[in-house]
Amino acid sequence: MQKRQIVKWRNRLYEIIYEADTPAGKLFDIVLMITIIASILLVMLESVKSIDARFHNFLNISEWVITILFTFEYIARIITVKKPIRYIFSFYGIIDLLSTIPKYISIIFGGVHALAALRALRLLRIFRILKLTRYLGASNNLVRALKASRAKISVFLFTVIIVAIILGTIMYLIEGEENGFTNIPKSVYWCIVTLTTVGFGDIAPQTPLGQFIASLVMILGYGIIAVPTGIVSAEYTAQNKDKTEPIKPTADLNTKSCPNCNAENHIDLAKFCYSCGKVLKHE
Amino acid sequence: MQKRQIVKWRNRLYEIIYEADTPAGKLFDIVLMITIIASILLVMLESVKSIDARFHNFLNISEWVITILFTFEYIARIITVKKPIRYIFSFYGIIDLLSTIPKYISIIFGGVHALAALRALRLLRIFRILKLTRYLGASNNLVRALKASRAKISVFLFTVIIVAIILGTIMYLIEGEENGFTNIPKSVYWCIVTLTTVGFGDIAPQTPLGQFIASLVMILGYGIIAVPTGIVSAEYTAQNKDKTEPIKPTADLNTKSCPNCNAENHIDLAKFCYSCGKVLKHE
Amino acid sequence: MQKRQIVKWRNRLYEIIYEADTPAGKLFDIVLMITIIASILLVMLESVKSIDARFHNFLNISEWVITILFTFEYIARIITVKKPIRYIFSFYGIIDLLSTIPKYISIIFGGVHALAALRALRLLRIFRILKLTRYLGASNNLVRALKASRAKISVFLFTVIIVAIILGTIMYLIEGEENGFTNIPKSVYWCIVTLTTVGFGDIAPQTPLGQFIASLVMILGYGIIAVPTGIVSAEYTAQNKDKTEPIKPTADLNTKSCPNCNAENHIDLAKFCYSCGKVLKHE
Amino acid sequence: MQKRQIVKWRNRLYEIIYEADTPAGKLFDIVLMITIIASILLVMLESVKSIDARFHNFLNISEWVITILFTFEYIARIITVKKPIRYIFSFYGIIDLLSTIPKYISIIFGGVHALAALRALRLLRIFRILKLTRYLGASNNLVRALKASRAKISVFLFTVIIVAIILGTIMYLIEGEENGFTNIPKSVYWCIVTLTTVGFGDIAPQTPLGQFIASLVMILGYGIIAVPTGIVSAEYTAQNKDKTEPIKPTADLNTKSCPNCNAENHIDLAKFCYSCGKVLKHE
Repeated sequence: MQKRQIVKWRNRLYEIIYEADTPAGKLFDIVLMITIIASILLVMLESVKSIDARFHNFLNISEWVITILFTFEYIARIITVKKPIRYIFSFYGIIDLLSTIPKYISIIFGGVHALAALRALRLLRIFRILKLTRYLGASNNLVRALKASRAKISVFLFTVIIVAIILGTIMYLIEGEENGFTNIPKSVYWCIVTLTTVGFGDIAPQTPLGQFIASLVMILGYGIIAVPTGIVSAEYTAQNKDKTEPIKPTADLNTKSCPNCNAENHIDLAKFCYSCGKVLKHE
Repeated sequence: MQKRQIVKWRNRLYEIIYEADTPAGKLFDIVLMITIIASILLVMLESVKSIDARFHNFLNISEWVITILFTFEYIARIITVKKPIRYIFSFYGIIDLLSTIPKYISIIFGGVHALAALRALRLLRIFRILKLTRYLGASNNLVRALKASRAKISVFLFTVIIVAIILGTIMYLIEGEENGFTNIPKSVYWCIVTLTTVGFGDIAPQTPLGQFIASLVMILGYGIIAVPTGIVSAEYTAQNKDKTEPIKPTADLNTKSCPNCNAENHIDLAKFCYSCGKVLKHE
Repeated sequence: MQKRQIVKWRNRLYEIIYEADTPAGKLFDIVLMITIIASILLVMLESVKSIDARFHNFLNISEWVITILFTFEYIARIITVKKPIRYIFSFYGIIDLLSTIPKYISIIFGGVHALAALRALRLLRIFRILKLTRYLGASNNLVRALKASRAKISVFLFTVIIVAIILGTIMYLIEGEENGFTNIPKSVYWCIVTLTTVGFGDIAPQTPLGQFIASLVMILGYGIIAVPTGIVSAEYTAQNKDKTEPIKPTADLNTKSCPNCNAENHIDLAKFCYSCGKVLKHE
Repeated sequence: MQKRQIVKWRNRLYEIIYEADTPAGKLFDIVLMITIIASILLVMLESVKSIDARFHNFLNISEWVITILFTFEYIARIITVKKPIRYIFSFYGIIDLLSTIPKYISIIFGGVHALAALRALRLLRIFRILKLTRYLGASNNLVRALKASRAKISVFLFTVIIVAIILGTIMYLIEGEENGFTNIPKSVYWCIVTLTTVGFGDIAPQTPLGQFIASLVMILGYGIIAVPTGIVSAEYTAQNKDKTEPIKPTADLNTKSCPNCNAENHIDLAKFCYSCGKVLKHE
């Protein structure tokens, strides 16, 4: 009888962790969400030196608390799920593990911030917790739009990269190392910075010819930015139309026909036939 | 009889302050608008050291004049309105108070610029004075469009923030403190600066790998910028269509009324009233 | 007879200057266009110190040549036009004068670059010379679109300015003078630079709170940029539709051919060929 | 008989190089694509000093290998093509030559990077290799859209340039040399940087008036960016509609009715009624 109780208890835990319809499941999801956000805030605060210096002990203990909570969650997930191997090697399974172990590793090797930062990827789980699928239904349109214009987008991206390489090379030849364009990859990087209208300004053309070419690049980028926007706008417009379009007649005409003269298309509230004047029978 | 006169006088004042259809009301609104703009200009000019040094007395006196005018207005609003408590704790009531008191506080505590700056919020009242509601009718479309695509926008914003946190963390790991990415929050800030194509350039990646990731971030941001634009364009297009294509009823209803029962909206070819069954006379 | 000849000569000159259909008129326009572009290039080159130092004499003489040409043109315009006063005080008349006199003034007062630079405004005349009205027919759509959405645009601009003032003031309070936000006007300027996603980076927030607010401003600006784009897109789409739409009749034609005469494109419910009158066989 | 074999062999080579349907042709294209990408990576890496210093020999040998491969390819193309002169002076022919010779020239004159960098243009050939024409079918829409709105775009570009020249000149007069606006061309360059919302920040206005004008420029640029986006969006939307609204058959139906059976909606050129097969009378 004990085994049956374990199974029961396991099923109960499975419900809490993987489903969100029971009160306990909802509570679990909310606590998990808060823990994830707290864990990310912790990693962020730890990376700020002045805060780490003042609150080192508090941050360290909080980190341990979260690590232990994540450990319990990870073990619970493995125990309750039917195919543990599948979970462990799934996308979320790997992220869950990588979000949990850095603190254990840090005992042996010292502070390994790198892995803790990967915890940011756990944020993706919030999408599922918040039932963003419902909202994603809204953004599914976007996904569909993007898929529909995959060919356009890949040609677009390809063109941007080729333009960046060609113009980047030209700028390297014109400006040269003395003006910050120290090599072609850096020059291509500058070109992408400019084409996308970001414009950091850490590198900027100094020669008149370079500035002239840069002006052309900018106006080009200005035009190129119109392309993805145009694609997405058009797709949205197309999808919106599909939704909003069934133009309804302002007068709801029904499909009954007059029992006397067979005239059709009566107004819903009509009592008499508009054609022969006889009474219309309503069921 | 005196009390009646006070009531009359209060009603008159109420009309001037809260309504804008009488000449006095219009004058009041115009004077108020000018005073608000003047008060904001004053706060701005005071914050410019060189101007404050030269015109300190003039600015000080002007500030007192405006403070006294605002005080009178505030008191008049409280006296004339029917539910003063409601006004005092309303959004505009609090702003009106906060725009008035800083000069009084400055006598006791010295210059408190912080509050005076909040006066900028009084600008919002100009929306009402300028009858921008009429224009807002135009922008109501926008508000409606934004509401209609609330789900899309929140998914979009959520995605931007998650992408910024994940990529910001990655850039922190790659670039490190020696290149200006001193901590994760700052790195996330840089990522938002880049994704939105603002690109201040106060922080910029220096390592080749960082510049490569940054290029990806920029092209991504370039694509992401298409999404809100696409949403708004599509909504505007949809609303434009609603307006320009006056949806015609599939049955052309005429505006004649039945001579017997006055029922309206008969189908054009109707010979009998749909409501009472009597003959419809056609001219 | 001499007076008549003067009139004739004046009319001929009028044709050359103000009309462009005769060969002489076309030639005049082309020469004028080249002269205007040359004069602007001259002003530009003169402003470059290294070029001015080397080619000072050449530039000086060229400037005199162009000034004299412009003087002749200006006088000719006054002589030939019917209402000289009207021309002199028209927009183009004033620009023509201001483009001509700086060299004369420079003899008396020394180099007055300021006025010469206004010559750039003569470029506007090129619109007319290039018959851009034909092209403007294309851009008239734009003008009409902009007019149609004047209310939307003014509310939009008003909102941007108010947001910039309010957020600029807040940033001034948070960042303060030590981080470059020396006064409120400068802070508002920074806010516009950021909202428009230009992002010079000459001023950039340094405090964590300032960077957080800045992030909000950027994401806001990111959203705001969608509004004018959406307006223009929607207007263009609406105008495009008006043009392309002529609703075509909707009879479903099939691809069957008549077994007798091979005529194609029969209406679906056709029983007889529209061309030879023989029976159409349906499978 | 030997000559015939040469012809055969030449035809075989032609197939391999210029066609891609045979297995050998496909292999050739893939190898060529990899070689082109490798050659560009080589030029990029060579331009990075630290890498060039460490791997100079390896890079040098690789460069020779690629140069020899390109030489063979160039010769093979000339031999096999029917009109060699035409190929040599075609766009691709010139690029192929310029991509090949720099290493040979470098033996005589020393390192001539400039030409090697032009190799980036060979990337354009990848478009053809990847059969991007298929995808370009998708982007042909874009090309058609751009052609359709050529007039709009040229007016737009012309306006941007004139605005940049006028505002650039004004900024030069306001800011002057001490604030980085050393001459008008540079000032125009700054204006384009700002109008396109790139904003490097290497030059930035310092005077209050300059910053005010700059704010106007930015808000203007913000509005101008809407124009190309609007044009492209509208074109895409129009083309999408053409596609998604399965083109309805366009037979101009007339409103005549058959004199025999009163059937309506005859095709214009119909001689017989589609319903009863009787002759239709035409007036």
